[in-house]
Amino acid sequence: MAIEPFHYDLMLEAIREAEASIAQGGLPIGAVLTRDRKIIARGHNNRVQEKNVILHGEMSCLRDAGLISFHDTVMYTTLSPCSMCAGALGLFKVSLAVIGESVTFPGSKDILDKFGIPWIDLADDRSIAMMKTWRSNPANERLWQGDIGN
Amino acid sequence: MAIEPFHYDLMLEAIREAEASIAQGGLPIGAVLTRDRKIIARGHNNRVQEKNVILHGEMSCLRDAGLISFHDTVMYTTLSPCSMCAGALGLFKVSLAVIGESVTFPGSKDILDKFGIPWIDLADDRSIAMMKTWRSNPANERLWQGDIGN
Repeated sequence: MAIEPFHYDLMLEAIREAEASIAQGGLPIGAVLTRDRKIIARGHNNRVQEKNVILHGEMSCLRDAGLISFHDTVMYTTLSPCSMCAGALGLFKVSLAVIGESVTFPGSKDILDKFGIPWIDLADDRSIAMMKTWRSNPANERLWQGDIGN
Repeated sequence: MAIEPFHYDLMLEAIREAEASIAQGGLPIGAVLTRDRKIIARGHNNRVQEKNVILHGEMSCLRDAGLISFHDTVMYTTLSPCSMCAGALGLFKVSLAVIGESVTFPGSKDILDKFGIPWIDLADDRSIAMMKTWRSNPANERLWQGDIGN
């Protein structure tokens, strides 16, 4: 089944979050949360900026949402969610996860599956190029390895 | 194999964190992180206090630790970790998770297992009683259900 074009438009907003993080010296991973195709929360990886290991892009976006029910929301994230973020999406029971790419990092889609969270992987060239370009700098690659606990 | 007594002493510090959260109107779940049996970070569930859904006890404790490697650390948590927190402990590769109890909430030990994180469940009466007493108040039970995304 073809992926509906609006998913790419909303992913562009997540990419803009990632670009904002790069400009701050942070990691290039962004996220937006939507309800009825409208953005209700945004965030990007803020590990470096706040010296806070838990602030992956999706986590920063969940924080921004406040104390809501997530059952009717969709999470857009530029990069396949790690085990922490996938576990959070499973716990909070988002209705759908839309993933920019899982080429540069496979992530934990199996945790989404375990919790019955549907997901779409856009395999989006924009997300792939952003991550590859950023990681080609050895200092950035070290930041990335720290981000995933290595 | 008998559980070494110092684990109960360090769990008491996690319980003290949980008690501090109760006094603030928050959820009764606390955590401490240790290296060489010394506490290097502490935290408690801060969801209500900061209106931030990601701040479970373990997450608050990881935040407190800063940008360190967790490979030689031990996480003590009063309650069995949910999928988000277990996913975080797996990602950051703590050397051991010590769990106060999993009677009132089973949590996601399977995610710890999947990442090869050893764990000990103390089945600690102090943790069990704290959670049961607190949840016997219907308003608190509603807070708890929100905490696990229901």
